[in-house]
Amino acid sequence: MLNDRQQSREQVLEAIRSSLEIKQFNNAVEAFKILHPGDQVEIFELLDADKKAELLSRLDISSTAILFNTQEDDETLQAAESLTIDRLADVLDEMEPDEAADLLGDLPADQAAKALEKMEDTEDVLELLKYPDETAGGRMTTDFISLSINATTTEAIETLRRIEPDHEAPYYIFVTDNEKLVGILGLRELVVSSPDTKIGELFDPEVFHVNDWMDQEEVAQTMATYDLAAVPVVDDAHHLVGVITHDDVLDVLQEEATEDIYRLASVSDTDLEPDSPIIEQLKGRLPWLFLNTLTALFASWIISNFEGIIAQVAVLAVFQSVVAGQGGNAASQGVAIFVRTMALGNIPPGKTLYLLTRQMIVGLIQGLVVGFVVGLGVYLWKGNIYLGIVLGLALVANMVLAGIVSTLIPMGLKSIGQDPALASSVLVTAVTDSLGFLIFLSLANLFLGNLI
Amino acid sequence: MLNDRQQSREQVLEAIRSSLEIKQFNNAVEAFKILHPGDQVEIFELLDADKKAELLSRLDISSTAILFNTQEDDETLQAAESLTIDRLADVLDEMEPDEAADLLGDLPADQAAKALEKMEDTEDVLELLKYPDETAGGRMTTDFISLSINATTTEAIETLRRIEPDHEAPYYIFVTDNEKLVGILGLRELVVSSPDTKIGELFDPEVFHVNDWMDQEEVAQTMATYDLAAVPVVDDAHHLVGVITHDDVLDVLQEEATEDIYRLASVSDTDLEPDSPIIEQLKGRLPWLFLNTLTALFASWIISNFEGIIAQVAVLAVFQSVVAGQGGNAASQGVAIFVRTMALGNIPPGKTLYLLTRQMIVGLIQGLVVGFVVGLGVYLWKGNIYLGIVLGLALVANMVLAGIVSTLIPMGLKSIGQDPALASSVLVTAVTDSLGFLIFLSLANLFLGNLI
Repeated sequence: MLNDRQQSREQVLEAIRSSLEIKQFNNAVEAFKILHPGDQVEIFELLDADKKAELLSRLDISSTAILFNTQEDDETLQAAESLTIDRLADVLDEMEPDEAADLLGDLPADQAAKALEKMEDTEDVLELLKYPDETAGGRMTTDFISLSINATTTEAIETLRRIEPDHEAPYYIFVTDNEKLVGILGLRELVVSSPDTKIGELFDPEVFHVNDWMDQEEVAQTMATYDLAAVPVVDDAHHLVGVITHDDVLDVLQEEATEDIYRLASVSDTDLEPDSPIIEQLKGRLPWLFLNTLTALFASWIISNFEGIIAQVAVLAVFQSVVAGQGGNAASQGVAIFVRTMALGNIPPGKTLYLLTRQMIVGLIQGLVVGFVVGLGVYLWKGNIYLGIVLGLALVANMVLAGIVSTLIPMGLKSIGQDPALASSVLVTAVTDSLGFLIFLSLANLFLGNLI
Repeated sequence: MLNDRQQSREQVLEAIRSSLEIKQFNNAVEAFKILHPGDQVEIFELLDADKKAELLSRLDISSTAILFNTQEDDETLQAAESLTIDRLADVLDEMEPDEAADLLGDLPADQAAKALEKMEDTEDVLELLKYPDETAGGRMTTDFISLSINATTTEAIETLRRIEPDHEAPYYIFVTDNEKLVGILGLRELVVSSPDTKIGELFDPEVFHVNDWMDQEEVAQTMATYDLAAVPVVDDAHHLVGVITHDDVLDVLQEEATEDIYRLASVSDTDLEPDSPIIEQLKGRLPWLFLNTLTALFASWIISNFEGIIAQVAVLAVFQSVVAGQGGNAASQGVAIFVRTMALGNIPPGKTLYLLTRQMIVGLIQGLVVGFVVGLGVYLWKGNIYLGIVLGLALVANMVLAGIVSTLIPMGLKSIGQDPALASSVLVTAVTDSLGFLIFLSLANLFLGNLI
C-alpha cells in the first residue's frame, strides 16, 4: 500500500483538481474526505489558493476540524481567515483544544473574540490560551487519560472502553492523587493484571514529567534523550494539566532545525517557502541584506584606504577577494558545526578555551595548506614571488581569524541566552571580509616595493 | 525531578569525574550505573577519552550493552574498538540486535569477524547485517510482539506477560497470517475485549507498513506524516521482519537536518563536532575549501581581465566585492529555503518555471532596493553619479542571477536524484561571485569615460 503512496497521492490530487476544475465539487469533497488526515494536509497544501477556498467552503465541519488539527499553523490560519465567524466557531469546537487555542492565538484579536463568543465549549481552550505557543503548555493536549490512584483495573478498563475508537492511541494512563501526578501505568501492565487490582499496586511512580512553562525545545530534547512516547505536563502545584506526545517532539525538532538552517543563511521568517507571497519573501530576506549592505560598505571603506596602492598595483584587486572569501567559507563551516552541535546539546560546558584553541589550530592548518597552494599558483601565474607570499600569509591569518570568530560568536551568543544561529554567515563573514581585506592590503603595503 | 535534571546531571558528572580522578573506580561505576541510559550517554560523551576508557573497562557487560544501544554510532564504535574481542562479543550478545548489527557493520572487518565467531546468538544479527544502515531494515528492531490471526486475547495477554518488564514499551501487537503481516492490534482494543475473543475479530487490517529496503528518510517522512508511534517492516514476501519506532524517526530526521546544515555550509562529514580530532575536521572541511580555491581563482581570472581599467579607476576595486557579496548572500538565502522546503516535502511538482519566475521577481525587487541604496550612498560618498549607477545596475543584475541559480541548482540536483543541499554556498556563490565581478566590471568599462 505505502509503496504506491506517492503515485496514488498524485492520482488523487489530479482527480480532485480536475473535479474542482469542472465544478464537480461533490466529487472533489468525497475524494478528499476518505483520505488519511496526513494525506489531506499534503494534498490541500499543494492546491492553488482558489481551489483551496472552493474545497474548504464545501467540506463539513468535522472534516475541516481534522484538517485544521493536522496542518501547519500558518496554513490553518490562512484557511481559517476565509471562514464566516459561525462556521469558524463550529470548527473550533470540533478541533483538538490545543490546536484550537493555537489558532485563536494566531487570529486577529477581534475575529478571535467573536469566534470565542460563538463557541459552545471554551473551558479547555481558555485554559490553554494562557500559554505561549512555544511552551509545554502551548504544545500539550488536554485530551489524555488519567485515573485516581485509588481506582481499580476494572474502572481503568471501563474508562478505556468509553473513549472513542478514533481517539489518538493512548500509550499510558496517568495516575493522580488529588489531581497531583504521582505516576504512570503502561497499558501492558493493565492488560496482564488481575481484575479489580488497585491502580496503586500496579503503577510506576518514576515518571518523567515537564513543567507547563518549560520551553518546547527543552521538552523535545528531554523526550528525545529518554525516548519517551508521551510525557505528562504539570503546573506549579504538580497538578496534571496535559500531555505531550511523540509527534509534537518531531514537530518541535523539525521547526528548530528549520530555524537554524534559515538563520544561518540569514533568512528571518522560518515559514518561508519558495512559493510564499513575494511580499513575505522580501520581509524575511531584505532586512538581512540591508544589514549586509552596511557591513559590505564598511569593508569597502577599508579597501578605499588602500586605493593609492591599488592604483599602483592593480593586481591586488584581482586577489583581494580570495582572501576574504576563503576566510568567509571557513568561518561558515565553523559556525555550522558549532550551531548544530549546540542544538543537539553536545558541547561540553566550560571548555571554551580548549575549543577555541582547536579551531585556531584547524584554521592555521587550513590556512597553511590553502595559502601554500594559492600562493604557489599565483606566483606561477603572475611570476611575482612576493605576491604569492603576501597572499599566502594573508590566507593563513584570515583562516585563523575565521577559527576565532566562528567559535567566539556562537558561544558568546549562547552564553548571553541568544540563539547561536544568529551568528549567521552575514555576521561572521562581515568580520572575515573586512579584516581579510585589511590584512591582505596591509601586507601588500609592507611589500609594496617588491610588488610594483 | 526533571526541572533539576541539568543541575543534577552536572553534579553527577562532577562526582564521576572526581571519583575517576582519585581512582575510586567503584564509586564512579556505581554512580554511573544507576543513571537512566539517556543520561549515561550524555555524561559519557562529555568525559575525556582516558576517563571514558577507565569507566568502560570496569562497567559490567549488561551496562555496557545498554550504553552502546543508546549512544550514537560513531561514539559506540570508538568505545568498542578499545574492548577485547571476548568482551566485545559478550556485549554484542547483550545489545539490541539492530544496534549490534550496526556496530558490527562499522567495525573493521577482521574485528567484526572475530567478534561474530565468539558470539553466542548470531541469527538475528546476521539477518540484519544484510541491510545497509540507511534502510528500513537497517533501522528496524527485530524485538517486537506479533501474534497469529488465529490466536485469542487470552494468548495475547499470556504473551505480554512473558515479555520482560524492562522491554521497550510495546504500542501495538502485530497480527500475522502464515508470517505475513495482516494487521495491527492496539493494546487498548486488547484491554477492552472479552476474554478468549479471536484476534481475527479485533484487529485493524488497515496497517501502514514499509518495505525493508525503503530508504530511512522516506520511512521517517511516512511516520511523521501519519503521526505513527511504530511502523511494521515487511520483506518482499510481505513477511513481518521488524518494527521501527518513533525514536528512530527522530534520529533519522535529526541526522538529515544535520546533513543539510553541514552540506549547505560545505562541511562533508556530518559527525563533526567542535572537539572532533583535528585530522577529522580537516578531512571534512579542507576538500571544500580547495574546491572554493579553484572557483575563487576563476573569479580572480575574470577580474584580471579588467586590470587595465582598475589601474585607471582604482575605486572599482573598492566596490566590486559589494556586488559579488550581496549576490552571494541572496543566493544563500534562496538555496536554504529551497533545500529545507524540499526536505520537508513541500515543493509542488511541475512548478519549476513558476518558482523560477517568482525567485527572479524577488531578486529583481531586492536588487532594485539594495541597488538604489548602495548606488545613492556611493554617489554621496564618492561624488560620481555614474559610479552609483554602475553599482546599482550591477546589483540588480546579480540579484536576479542569484534568484536564478538558487532555484535551478537545487531543483536540478533534486531532479537527477542528488541531494539539493549539495548546492552549498560554495557552489552557488561561485556563480554569483564570478558573474558579479564580470557584470560590474563590464558595466564600468562601458561607462569608463564617466568614471575616470
